[in-house]
Amino acid sequence: MLGHMTASCSDNSVPLSPTARSTPRRHPERARADRAELYALLDEALICHLAVLVDGAPVVLPTGYGRAGDVLYLHGSVASRSLAAAADFPVSVAVTLVDGVVYARASFRCSMNYRSAVVHGTARRVTDPDETYRGLAAITDHLAPGTWSYARRPSRKELAATAVLALDLGESAVKIRTGPPRDSAEDIAAGTAWAGVVPVRTAFGTPEGCPSLPGGVAVPEHVAARASAV
Amino acid sequence: MLGHMTASCSDNSVPLSPTARSTPRRHPERARADRAELYALLDEALICHLAVLVDGAPVVLPTGYGRAGDVLYLHGSVASRSLAAAADFPVSVAVTLVDGVVYARASFRCSMNYRSAVVHGTARRVTDPDETYRGLAAITDHLAPGTWSYARRPSRKELAATAVLALDLGESAVKIRTGPPRDSAEDIAAGTAWAGVVPVRTAFGTPEGCPSLPGGVAVPEHVAARASAV
Repeated sequence: MLGHMTASCSDNSVPLSPTARSTPRRHPERARADRAELYALLDEALICHLAVLVDGAPVVLPTGYGRAGDVLYLHGSVASRSLAAAADFPVSVAVTLVDGVVYARASFRCSMNYRSAVVHGTARRVTDPDETYRGLAAITDHLAPGTWSYARRPSRKELAATAVLALDLGESAVKIRTGPPRDSAEDIAAGTAWAGVVPVRTAFGTPEGCPSLPGGVAVPEHVAARASAV
Repeated sequence: MLGHMTASCSDNSVPLSPTARSTPRRHPERARADRAELYALLDEALICHLAVLVDGAPVVLPTGYGRAGDVLYLHGSVASRSLAAAADFPVSVAVTLVDGVVYARASFRCSMNYRSAVVHGTARRVTDPDETYRGLAAITDHLAPGTWSYARRPSRKELAATAVLALDLGESAVKIRTGPPRDSAEDIAAGTAWAGVVPVRTAFGTPEGCPSLPGGVAVPEHVAARASAV
């Protein structure tokens, strides 16, 4: 198993350096080596899927995350099985955005337009209080931008109940598919069937206030901005 | 490692029977035992995340899928590493829909509204030609409903290039979170901060025809219906 890369690097002009397992063999034309594309995808998506090993079998779970430079932060309860299985063991994290459904003339060529990142590495349990705070800030503001400076910060008791993991992004692979279906010349020449793409996007709706809010507390700017950004 | 359940059961009145690893220990109030909720979630989501073991480390990848009764079908190239690692080995599959971002008064209580299913089992390589066809039909019509009967069916050569895997849904866990933030009584009483939910949904856009379509091929009903369903 490859260890995670030594140096953190948040210079997005440095291309990704794929290892054997982070080099896509299927559809190599979809692979991207641009760190900026990795960051953009990680910053846009809402959740990741974390795979860990439990009793010798892979287990995959959806979870939130945050990014700071070249480090991905994950968190969970200190009592969590999956977090315990992730700390100091090899893990894999995938972040995927579906951008479209590709309707081809042949069912074999139907596909999806997507952007995906897969990260391999060993997750490190964060113990330094400052890094714990930075990790939680990254996770909170990734999920709910603007919340870290708006909401009440974690108490000592809440911090003690939270485990934060750090995963270096050094061993990451990005794949992107865009554009129309790639049908065969014969299927295109037949000319009878429709083919194309139905775009897919994530939409944010109108904020719904908590029923226990007192009257007169307006939707703050950082929340309203997100809902109107679509 | 637990084998997958013996009998396929597509009667959605039969509740899920969680095993130790499919029983959530965190937030048990979010667990659902209703098979209909599992099916509804699997049918609505577009992609899954498949975790397999490669050289002793977990690897997670996004991929399409289809459901027929109590079986989840996956497919890929016969040359695919991840498919080879999935067949006859323990795998885990997660399907997740994000329904909202939960803005709490305390950052510790920020959360997501979501529906997620995690399936554990051993994926079986499908070799029977009829089941291969059924599996591909399920995968195609899951991704692009109506396409199996509209598009050209796979040729013998295309079928030979495609591996289909079947995963029994017997060992599945469903978790669902809904509703407003669960802030502490103290934070609610403070009454100064906004709290609530920003709904999130997947939206389909206007179909974009393939540039190589001849004039006069209209968007068919099964495609138009999807785009207008949001």
